[in-house]
Amino acid sequence: MDMEKVVSLCRRRGFLFQSSEIYGGLNGFWDYGPLGVELKRNVKEAWWRDMVATHDDLGTLPGAPSPYDMVGIDCTIIMHPQVWKVSGHYDLFIDEMVDCRTEGCKGRFRVDHLAGSECPLKPSKPAGGSDKCSLTEPREFNLMFKTTLGALGGEEDTAYLRPETAQGIFVNFKNVVDSSRVRVPFGVAQQGKSFRNEITPRNFTFRSREFEQMEIEFFCHPDTSRQWYEFWRDRRMQWYKDLGLAGDRLRLRDHDPDELSHYSTGTADIEYAFPFLSEGEYGELEGIAHRGDFDLRSHMEGKLDPKTCPLTVEQGDDGKPRHRGSGRDLTYRDDLTNERFTPHVIEPSAGADRATLAFLCEAYTEDEAPDEKGKMQTRTLMRFHPRIAPIKAAVFPLVKKDGMPEVAQDLYKALKKKFPAVYDAGGAVGRRYRRQDEIGTPYCITIDGQTLQDQTVTIRDRDSLEQVRVKLDDTVAEVERRITAL
Amino acid sequence: MDMEKVVSLCRRRGFLFQSSEIYGGLNGFWDYGPLGVELKRNVKEAWWRDMVATHDDLGTLPGAPSPYDMVGIDCTIIMHPQVWKVSGHYDLFIDEMVDCRTEGCKGRFRVDHLAGSECPLKPSKPAGGSDKCSLTEPREFNLMFKTTLGALGGEEDTAYLRPETAQGIFVNFKNVVDSSRVRVPFGVAQQGKSFRNEITPRNFTFRSREFEQMEIEFFCHPDTSRQWYEFWRDRRMQWYKDLGLAGDRLRLRDHDPDELSHYSTGTADIEYAFPFLSEGEYGELEGIAHRGDFDLRSHMEGKLDPKTCPLTVEQGDDGKPRHRGSGRDLTYRDDLTNERFTPHVIEPSAGADRATLAFLCEAYTEDEAPDEKGKMQTRTLMRFHPRIAPIKAAVFPLVKKDGMPEVAQDLYKALKKKFPAVYDAGGAVGRRYRRQDEIGTPYCITIDGQTLQDQTVTIRDRDSLEQVRVKLDDTVAEVERRITAL
Repeated sequence: MDMEKVVSLCRRRGFLFQSSEIYGGLNGFWDYGPLGVELKRNVKEAWWRDMVATHDDLGTLPGAPSPYDMVGIDCTIIMHPQVWKVSGHYDLFIDEMVDCRTEGCKGRFRVDHLAGSECPLKPSKPAGGSDKCSLTEPREFNLMFKTTLGALGGEEDTAYLRPETAQGIFVNFKNVVDSSRVRVPFGVAQQGKSFRNEITPRNFTFRSREFEQMEIEFFCHPDTSRQWYEFWRDRRMQWYKDLGLAGDRLRLRDHDPDELSHYSTGTADIEYAFPFLSEGEYGELEGIAHRGDFDLRSHMEGKLDPKTCPLTVEQGDDGKPRHRGSGRDLTYRDDLTNERFTPHVIEPSAGADRATLAFLCEAYTEDEAPDEKGKMQTRTLMRFHPRIAPIKAAVFPLVKKDGMPEVAQDLYKALKKKFPAVYDAGGAVGRRYRRQDEIGTPYCITIDGQTLQDQTVTIRDRDSLEQVRVKLDDTVAEVERRITAL
Repeated sequence: MDMEKVVSLCRRRGFLFQSSEIYGGLNGFWDYGPLGVELKRNVKEAWWRDMVATHDDLGTLPGAPSPYDMVGIDCTIIMHPQVWKVSGHYDLFIDEMVDCRTEGCKGRFRVDHLAGSECPLKPSKPAGGSDKCSLTEPREFNLMFKTTLGALGGEEDTAYLRPETAQGIFVNFKNVVDSSRVRVPFGVAQQGKSFRNEITPRNFTFRSREFEQMEIEFFCHPDTSRQWYEFWRDRRMQWYKDLGLAGDRLRLRDHDPDELSHYSTGTADIEYAFPFLSEGEYGELEGIAHRGDFDLRSHMEGKLDPKTCPLTVEQGDDGKPRHRGSGRDLTYRDDLTNERFTPHVIEPSAGADRATLAFLCEAYTEDEAPDEKGKMQTRTLMRFHPRIAPIKAAVFPLVKKDGMPEVAQDLYKALKKKFPAVYDAGGAVGRRYRRQDEIGTPYCITIDGQTLQDQTVTIRDRDSLEQVRVKLDDTVAEVERRITAL
């Protein structure tokens, strides 16, 4: 798989465009075109449906310690600035960066992305040898985008674009418990945009400055939290496999103990070997973290500030600087056992754009298929799982006469009521197949001479190229059956 | 209908919460709770399905001058800053505001919201009479939220949160034409968040600082643009009616000629008489505007700047200040007629949060219904159209014994695979009905003694209170039929 070919197809067929392209583009921002928006909507819808909408809260899922509740939420991107002080993002969501000092070289790098102490760009290499370091000392840089609320524009009106959707769930924990009938254990799911002012956005949509997350905060009793962590780690991994990331490029990687945050007793990443990475490298699709009671406790009690920042830090009772928490009681009382406790949290945090990109990369295939005259030709196809394919079916009249277009149009209209479909009467049927293969349409239906005689059509499978004849009247149901059966 | 009751129900049952409530809230920002997120998702999904996904591009819809294409797109919130200079938002997206000068009164007002020249807040009333004006001179204030891209933070890195989704469609016009097979006339649809730094956010979610839009830009030939304008005006009005805004509170209002923008030959607002407004007042749900070729032409050629702003304005050939356009050719060539032209644009621009709020207000009902003992009691119900109701069905075992819970749970699980449903075994069945009425669940299904004998259940209609018996095995199909039939 060649990343440039994937990027080129995305551009050519309308999956992804650079944001504001006619004005020269904007580094780290990407727009979804007509097919891309359908693909990404399907990925998000599959996640919502599988995690929330069809979740069976009475049954025990394989591997789950018990039945559990699941609800959704949708919070604002701009939240009260205190949220980010208490979450730690205000003080700690920082990258160290260096600039190249050499004149004419505008290199800027994240320290953790540098292999050595020299500028990796060629223009900055000093002519006289390699023992001279041309980089500045590291500087700290907060990744949250800042803005200002209201008309005055003072320091106290500073707000931030959320760098993650998770905090919106934590601060609504009590609202959800009070307004719905959920009982611990339960999960709260959210999809939405987040923003990070990346120093070096790169690798297509993988590291962008505006991106969409799909996050769950799962609240459970401390005694069973380890089991729930293992459940979610396995369940989320299975979700990607079920949607088509079935090959070697997907892996689950448990963090080493020295990689863990101080509050986490377990974190695993679901990773994908994106084709833009070097051999043996993987990129994160989702992290599943056991966060203990760290987040709810912080939003109750506040947080010690690791740096001294006199403008924003209040003094704690112990004399140490402290960000003030909400002071609200975010504990939970189990009405059956009467036990009161601060729930532990398991956080499966996925990137919708990264998942979409992995599905695009995994789908990209070149094979050999016979053309109209039986000659083998290279064929480009996107092997999307039918659930996420942007277009589910295409309808072709073999020729534009003999009543075939009329029959094809009626079938197309019937399909369109159920799911995205296209009608294409233009050019040789082989070319029409190729056009659909390239955008990953799983089923192409052709109306031919025989249709007019016996009321049957051919359904052609994108991957196997197999063609079967089915009754015209059964076609919609048959395509629907195939899509949902998988 | 009493707005305070609607707001209270929204809070109590988890439709809407104030953003960051545990930190005192944030003025002009609202979070959707577990039921609210389902309601809003249904509104957005209904729009996408009706406008894009099931749109029949071969047939001619009633009132449409011809068949037309329809595709979606999803652009970033942060775009190249030049977009907003050329669109006019940088110079013209301005409110005039005044402050109250009286000490202790922190009143701030939009000039266009003031009835007279005096501060409407009581504390500012001068003791000595009313002939003394206590307001400052009007100041201009741009409503776009500003932020800074990258680590340097210079003036040239200033960017804006989009105040509308529309511009993302215009700047992608050529990308869509080049990458998909659409032909004029066609529409491009987009849903997404927009931001406006409102001076005085108010009226619940009606005027908030972060909100979601559902916009279509419809590109057509100048000769038929007037017909398309009328088509879209009527079609959008019908959409709200079909989803339940069928009463007197909805109206379509054509703008008077003196209300029109200089480039518009027709604009209509779809308005709703929200209960927080005074008698006879209406609030905008959607605007449908004939925008001519104004937007595409601006993004080609740039725009005269109505004010002098030396930092950002280039000089035009005519010596007048000018924002530079993209210089790209955004005209369209019809491959059948060979005619080249700049398409005209019809823009139906709806607010997803405002539509959701209107559906909430319209649904809120109090009536009289008999309780368990046949005594009439006040009942609160939300008469949501079944398509947008957050929960479609509830399943109750009459008592928690005799095998009723098992039958009810199996039915619940079968329903849950199709759409959001709840299972409730708690308390008297009358109370359970009331709980569902209050969140607008259209169908409640009860498993009772007769079920165990003849395998039938009762389905109770939320609005008519009518109960019919259907076969247990037919229940899922019957509920599905009722939801989709409407």
